[in-house]
Amino acid sequence: MTIQGRGSAEHGGRVRLGMVGGGQGAFIGAVHRIASRLDDRYRLLAGALSSDPERALASARELGLAEGRSYADYRAMARRERRLKDGIEVVSIVTPNHLHFPVAKAFLQAGIHVICDKPMVHSSREARQLQKLAKTRDLLFAVTYNYSGYPMVRQARDMVIGGELGEIRVVQVEYPQDWLTEKLEESGQKQAAWRTDPARSGAGGCVGDIGTHAYHLATFITGLELEALCADLSRFVSGRRLDDNVQILLRFKGGARGMLWASQVAPGNENALRIRVFGSKGGLSWSQEDPNYLYYTPFAEPPRRITRGGSGSRAIAGRVTRIPPGHPEGYLEGFANLYSEVADAIVARREGRCPDADVMFPTVEDGCRGVAFIEAAVRSSDRGARWVKM
Amino acid sequence: MTIQGRGSAEHGGRVRLGMVGGGQGAFIGAVHRIASRLDDRYRLLAGALSSDPERALASARELGLAEGRSYADYRAMARRERRLKDGIEVVSIVTPNHLHFPVAKAFLQAGIHVICDKPMVHSSREARQLQKLAKTRDLLFAVTYNYSGYPMVRQARDMVIGGELGEIRVVQVEYPQDWLTEKLEESGQKQAAWRTDPARSGAGGCVGDIGTHAYHLATFITGLELEALCADLSRFVSGRRLDDNVQILLRFKGGARGMLWASQVAPGNENALRIRVFGSKGGLSWSQEDPNYLYYTPFAEPPRRITRGGSGSRAIAGRVTRIPPGHPEGYLEGFANLYSEVADAIVARREGRCPDADVMFPTVEDGCRGVAFIEAAVRSSDRGARWVKM
Amino acid sequence: MTIQGRGSAEHGGRVRLGMVGGGQGAFIGAVHRIASRLDDRYRLLAGALSSDPERALASARELGLAEGRSYADYRAMARRERRLKDGIEVVSIVTPNHLHFPVAKAFLQAGIHVICDKPMVHSSREARQLQKLAKTRDLLFAVTYNYSGYPMVRQARDMVIGGELGEIRVVQVEYPQDWLTEKLEESGQKQAAWRTDPARSGAGGCVGDIGTHAYHLATFITGLELEALCADLSRFVSGRRLDDNVQILLRFKGGARGMLWASQVAPGNENALRIRVFGSKGGLSWSQEDPNYLYYTPFAEPPRRITRGGSGSRAIAGRVTRIPPGHPEGYLEGFANLYSEVADAIVARREGRCPDADVMFPTVEDGCRGVAFIEAAVRSSDRGARWVKM
Amino acid sequence: MTIQGRGSAEHGGRVRLGMVGGGQGAFIGAVHRIASRLDDRYRLLAGALSSDPERALASARELGLAEGRSYADYRAMARRERRLKDGIEVVSIVTPNHLHFPVAKAFLQAGIHVICDKPMVHSSREARQLQKLAKTRDLLFAVTYNYSGYPMVRQARDMVIGGELGEIRVVQVEYPQDWLTEKLEESGQKQAAWRTDPARSGAGGCVGDIGTHAYHLATFITGLELEALCADLSRFVSGRRLDDNVQILLRFKGGARGMLWASQVAPGNENALRIRVFGSKGGLSWSQEDPNYLYYTPFAEPPRRITRGGSGSRAIAGRVTRIPPGHPEGYLEGFANLYSEVADAIVARREGRCPDADVMFPTVEDGCRGVAFIEAAVRSSDRGARWVKM
Repeated sequence: MTIQGRGSAEHGGRVRLGMVGGGQGAFIGAVHRIASRLDDRYRLLAGALSSDPERALASARELGLAEGRSYADYRAMARRERRLKDGIEVVSIVTPNHLHFPVAKAFLQAGIHVICDKPMVHSSREARQLQKLAKTRDLLFAVTYNYSGYPMVRQARDMVIGGELGEIRVVQVEYPQDWLTEKLEESGQKQAAWRTDPARSGAGGCVGDIGTHAYHLATFITGLELEALCADLSRFVSGRRLDDNVQILLRFKGGARGMLWASQVAPGNENALRIRVFGSKGGLSWSQEDPNYLYYTPFAEPPRRITRGGSGSRAIAGRVTRIPPGHPEGYLEGFANLYSEVADAIVARREGRCPDADVMFPTVEDGCRGVAFIEAAVRSSDRGARWVKM
Repeated sequence: MTIQGRGSAEHGGRVRLGMVGGGQGAFIGAVHRIASRLDDRYRLLAGALSSDPERALASARELGLAEGRSYADYRAMARRERRLKDGIEVVSIVTPNHLHFPVAKAFLQAGIHVICDKPMVHSSREARQLQKLAKTRDLLFAVTYNYSGYPMVRQARDMVIGGELGEIRVVQVEYPQDWLTEKLEESGQKQAAWRTDPARSGAGGCVGDIGTHAYHLATFITGLELEALCADLSRFVSGRRLDDNVQILLRFKGGARGMLWASQVAPGNENALRIRVFGSKGGLSWSQEDPNYLYYTPFAEPPRRITRGGSGSRAIAGRVTRIPPGHPEGYLEGFANLYSEVADAIVARREGRCPDADVMFPTVEDGCRGVAFIEAAVRSSDRGARWVKM
Repeated sequence: MTIQGRGSAEHGGRVRLGMVGGGQGAFIGAVHRIASRLDDRYRLLAGALSSDPERALASARELGLAEGRSYADYRAMARRERRLKDGIEVVSIVTPNHLHFPVAKAFLQAGIHVICDKPMVHSSREARQLQKLAKTRDLLFAVTYNYSGYPMVRQARDMVIGGELGEIRVVQVEYPQDWLTEKLEESGQKQAAWRTDPARSGAGGCVGDIGTHAYHLATFITGLELEALCADLSRFVSGRRLDDNVQILLRFKGGARGMLWASQVAPGNENALRIRVFGSKGGLSWSQEDPNYLYYTPFAEPPRRITRGGSGSRAIAGRVTRIPPGHPEGYLEGFANLYSEVADAIVARREGRCPDADVMFPTVEDGCRGVAFIEAAVRSSDRGARWVKM
Repeated sequence: MTIQGRGSAEHGGRVRLGMVGGGQGAFIGAVHRIASRLDDRYRLLAGALSSDPERALASARELGLAEGRSYADYRAMARRERRLKDGIEVVSIVTPNHLHFPVAKAFLQAGIHVICDKPMVHSSREARQLQKLAKTRDLLFAVTYNYSGYPMVRQARDMVIGGELGEIRVVQVEYPQDWLTEKLEESGQKQAAWRTDPARSGAGGCVGDIGTHAYHLATFITGLELEALCADLSRFVSGRRLDDNVQILLRFKGGARGMLWASQVAPGNENALRIRVFGSKGGLSWSQEDPNYLYYTPFAEPPRRITRGGSGSRAIAGRVTRIPPGHPEGYLEGFANLYSEVADAIVARREGRCPDADVMFPTVEDGCRGVAFIEAAVRSSDRGARWVKM
């Protein structure tokens, strides 16, 4: 029962971090900060924490940023930080979606690595621009498809890629929530307001907010590439401007078939991302709300429950595990795994080492694919739920 | 903790029963017999238990049928039983699917009520013929969509129809199994052989065997009518002649959307029929393998677990409940509920009473709709998974 | 997915059955009747169904007993049935506890086999008398510790006895209910009235009604013999005359230790009998409310879920299984297994065959031990929860 | 879905922290450090991280301690830190148990607050000495009964204390593990070695390591005071020097009864602390391995699942919640809640404010009671499992 993996990774150089967005009242910004702190791999040194200058300043003070490192404007931040001796090495972008593109572009142009929330941008055109920029400048670009950071998700991927399920046939992934069952966006709730607003969220509502997570998880675990989809997007709440329920048939290259359901109007579901994968030799099931368990069902044998750190848990999971089995880790720990892996990669570059060959965190390529998925789903649905090739 | 409903229904006249199919080695025939016995409402008096005369006779002896009431041929049975003073009042048809039509027709023409396994017949044309015949002769025709007999399914229907979930938006139903993950039909296994043979099963494999159960359950609980579907049927096992995996998008009249997944190749799933229904005010979830629990999730309130016979369980469930909460009832009890309801209806007619106005057991109309569903799914899939109107 | 075991045991000679108790409004009598019917192994021919003659007659009619086979008095029944040509071979005793002794005695003296509900009698003195009588007359005497009839309980026993758990160290068994949380006996509820009345229930309340089930299950599965116990019995509801909560430390011969908790005042528990057994090589867990699952936890391997009839399920479970895995069987099926095994034994004797050497159903010896357990628990508690040797 | 409670508590003054124990290879030290970091309330400035000087230094470097703040000896650390201008305000003691007393004493005498792992010390005599010292010096003394930091445990306490369960009758608490099923202490595993060694662990093995957690949780949630206990401690692994299985009957003041089971030899259990509380009006159930759920069972109503941050979750839980429902928090977050509450109290004192009147973190008084519990359990067991008054 000694501590493994990430728990002993408190060492390793610390990385200088900045943040855009995430001021007082934001949800995901606080999550990113905790994630950066958990393994003690970052120092948060600068921020443009809010588009409202007063809020930005108050937030910066609360977080203990030094005077002069709180910026009212992300452009100014990018410009100045690149010139500081201890300027930030990486920026976290935790704004509403529509700002991801200009902010990421500004920091990439300033030679600063990027950690960007999902979905990466509004269009494949923008996505490819960032992809190109990151490549040209040789910068790291992580997209926080954070569910890929869970140890049991890593193990699932390892088992599928390793052939333990045989040839994959069926992928069932779902991500139901219920928080938009009623018209919350009219109540002034900030999260609901921007997430149902096409100008800030993009063309996808539910499909962009959570459908894209489900899609990423499915491809991350199976390694399959999507070939075509047939999407039926609905707006169940009267007057809502973006889809709040998503039902998609999936066809993968090689012949596997899948279904993806995402919903924001499914009462009794909080954040119930769940995936099941079935192959010719066995199946797997994992649920985000109970993330320490992976159910493995080899054909014609009794089902087994593999627990994080427990019997049957593998090295690939152990590397992102801090505490022994039976001591549950959760969402923040999974998120922190991505952050610590980015820190590993930055430190490796700093030390002239080549970054780890098999980077596990989602990159700009995952971001591009996620945007393409949203576009395809919207296009399919707009055509009356017809099949669309990727 | 006194016993309720079916448990005290041992009285009531007994009904004279015959059976076609269900000889030694059959699965579903034995289930029908246990179902008929559970509440002591039937006497099994006659049978054409196998197409193999020796097997028919041996089976009849084992079951204690009188000499002369075991028939080698269902036509002879229908002809003779109608003339006997204590001839059977109702026949159970538990043959492979392709015989349902001629057998049902023969007994209806003989003026004998019918209990028929699902799917009812191979085509809508046949289905309508039986429907017409039953109507003309004023005979009862039950189709054993047996999952509608579970008490908690009855309660779910009652809650949905009663408006407790508000306007229904989303229906997610699934029925995965794993028994055909490998090519069992080549092993000589009798069940696998006929269920994968188009001549005996009909045009639908998985969709006809279990997809139709899932479809019936969804419409039984929600009372919704299917408007259109888009079905992607697959044959994952090489050389298999019928679909073994079924993924369908559903559009219901009135705007509700759904997904239906059925599979015979999903390792780790035995008989995992499960349904979730979500409306504007709440949700429900029920799983066949744990049938005594119904999960009810009113929006913005803690989820509740309703147990058969327990707190929150209603009269409609109590009527088909035999034993107190915490004493699990299962598949056979649910099946028996349909049988006992058919017996109630037969006795009511015998006594000149009008049969209960709100018959709960599935009838020839349900059988017709089930056949139409299979046809539509096959047609949709054959066209490349295009939308098909019902 | 062919049907196994009990499902094909409809054949085999039928046995002539009588019943004492179990008239209209009773709970357990109806359960016994369904159990006797399920596999078609009994014909119910005679009864003294109630101490109230009118009720007895009405009940007999409802059940279709022939005129002249409904008795107002169990003594008359025993006397007459022994002389009839088709007199009953076995009687089911389903009265309140205080009548078990005189009724059983009367039928044993009449040379009729006995199936008796638990606890068998009020005192070890009475218990030994019946034991002796059964032995002398060479009669079968079954006690319906019905939970031992569940297939997965049989499998658990097989695994423990077979050494798969290694040397047994710890046994945790519990049986909480909540139906007596309030003073239900004052409401006129019949079950509550007699079960809280020392004159009819015996010296044990909760310990006699359900504690004895838990004790039997623990010894049935482990094969261990109880050496000593330390019992703390409570009466939480003011004015109640018998214990409604039972907490016992157990010491088994050979060194294993256990805890037994039974309660009638634990809100949220319906009939939550559960057992966990741990040995030097592995553990087992089984819960009555979800009886088709057995959890097996070999040390240092992932936990496995074994399902009735599924992978890992054994022949010993298959022999008492009717339908395929995923088709849940429940309380009535488990109860029926005991009935059918008694029928097997009676038919074997009738045919001059020795009854099956390894009878699985609980016998008069189990009944004796159950009574001794209740006596010891009451004695221990009366002395201030001191250790008492068995 | 805005972030609540602890998530926004990144502000607030940071507290200067030292640590004794917790060098490379230790488990609980790393946990304490993560817990201190999560809400950004501490700066780790000094340490005597190992009794091995080289290891101490290497550990200090890895953690980024300044030169001169890594001590080879805890006494030197206490002496010097008290004099430094930015000397530590609080020390975390994460050594094996036998060092808790001298280390805590040294730091208290130096006027430094203490956070000490459990069990606090080896004897009530030592415990009272520390209690007196803390009181005299007016110092904070927290004992990391960390399970009391979980939001749903806080809510459980709030519901019980608030009377929603009525009068408490029954408390069932258990804490099974399996890591000592075999003789791990012979393998050189460090944790196993000291935890089974009376000189380092104290007179209680399993009872001291985890039984004391279970005891604390039971009293924390119910507010009940233990009156007497009857303990049966076992050593199942041959040659083991301390108990590895603990079974205890509990009597609380006011009449409630309980059972406590703790085990290190129960295969299939990782860290399965679980508590159930039953009163005259309802019940509660909580399991540490699935800590985001609290099951509430009001009598005669359907059971409800309350989720952290979800419907039915209260302000008292919200105060120690960082992220929305459905985003699981775990062991580290619960642990961090205690750390952040200690930081709150230190900052309050620093600012001349009285520390929060209702401190929720466990204090030296809880530590004293925990030691007394272990002593009583060992004494009871040594006398043959006789009742012992507290």
